[in-house]
Amino acid sequence: MTLRPLTTIGFDADDTLWQNEQFYRLTEQLFTELLGDYAEGERISERLLEAEKRNLSQYGFGIKGFTLSMIETAIEITQGEVPASVIAQILDIGRDLLSHPVETLPEVKETLEALAGRYLLVMITKGDLFDQERKLAQSGLGDFFDAVEIVSDKTAVTYRRIFSKLGDGPERAMMVGNSLKSDVVPAIAAGSYGVFIPHALTWVLEHVEEPTEAPRFRKIEHIGELRPLIEGLS
Amino acid sequence: MTLRPLTTIGFDADDTLWQNEQFYRLTEQLFTELLGDYAEGERISERLLEAEKRNLSQYGFGIKGFTLSMIETAIEITQGEVPASVIAQILDIGRDLLSHPVETLPEVKETLEALAGRYLLVMITKGDLFDQERKLAQSGLGDFFDAVEIVSDKTAVTYRRIFSKLGDGPERAMMVGNSLKSDVVPAIAAGSYGVFIPHALTWVLEHVEEPTEAPRFRKIEHIGELRPLIEGLS
Repeated sequence: MTLRPLTTIGFDADDTLWQNEQFYRLTEQLFTELLGDYAEGERISERLLEAEKRNLSQYGFGIKGFTLSMIETAIEITQGEVPASVIAQILDIGRDLLSHPVETLPEVKETLEALAGRYLLVMITKGDLFDQERKLAQSGLGDFFDAVEIVSDKTAVTYRRIFSKLGDGPERAMMVGNSLKSDVVPAIAAGSYGVFIPHALTWVLEHVEEPTEAPRFRKIEHIGELRPLIEGLS
Repeated sequence: MTLRPLTTIGFDADDTLWQNEQFYRLTEQLFTELLGDYAEGERISERLLEAEKRNLSQYGFGIKGFTLSMIETAIEITQGEVPASVIAQILDIGRDLLSHPVETLPEVKETLEALAGRYLLVMITKGDLFDQERKLAQSGLGDFFDAVEIVSDKTAVTYRRIFSKLGDGPERAMMVGNSLKSDVVPAIAAGSYGVFIPHALTWVLEHVEEPTEAPRFRKIEHIGELRPLIEGLS
């Protein structure tokens, strides 16, 4: 065992560095209200989630695909009776979502500031390229990162590739994020540390069980606990 | 002057490595037919282009944004009278566009095969992450590239960053593509060679004048002429 095995830290962005899901939930709320004459809110949300799942392999992650899925759901739920004015409003709320303000989570800046320079920091995120770049720019966190990887999916292969290309391989890397499914479990499968920071709101498609018998799995309450955790490793 | 100044070659993808614009044109044709009862095809295309321009700063490049712009245009052109069934068909043709077959252009494979290993080859493209990865996978060209960069925009800064990060700086790099605006002019501004290979179909928003007084500008008729051009440089 080397003295300082960890050299590279990957950070998820949405709901790890800044708020995200809450803006989606708000948009979904507006969407169900727009269709309130046609169905119950819960029923609409269910159908929307089905559409998102169905479309994931073609649209990938991000707001543009979400907007297209809302439009599809509106047509379905109204059995083709949705007026164009409602579709226009769906386009509007989708565009609003694309320009929501960026709200950095507590202690994120301090944590990145302390780690930058000592570790290679990489932001690793899914979603629309344009939108993620906008949020990074607006967050003011860009300078703390040595690299930014916007990827179409997050699998063990993704982490192995990124941590080999940019760092010293997955064994000397750690991934930090709020999604067990996308951030933690595949990073551990790649041989890295996987640090889970639960967020009150996490998209249902990102839910999986916490890993058991994974010596490189860690769970902390908030990002402020990351530095002590890292210090404890060496 | 060193003996072999060039070490890195960037390739645009859409309409440089494989057909792309023709599928957009076909989709636009279907779109104007869907709205044939409401306006002339040419008028519809004009309004669609305006919507695309207007939305570019929020949607970026790619098929999902194009689909959203088609929906917006359909609402506009019908003054809010477009039936949901037509919107559903627009969603369908957008999805078809996302799964169009990949048609590699002539001599692309042979050219990449000959250059791979001798130069660092990088695919540099705009568009939807998911869609570009799908096309690269289906093209069978993935193994020829040392790196793939899917970017939100192509400026001199983009090329300087990529060619510095992956290669030996922009001065020892070349960018090859069918768009003067996105591939050739900004690469030359970054200090690289810019090789223009015109394609019969190029999106109107990608048109600019050919550069004059640019010693690193080259124009060839097809990609088969690239190898002799490169040999002529050294």
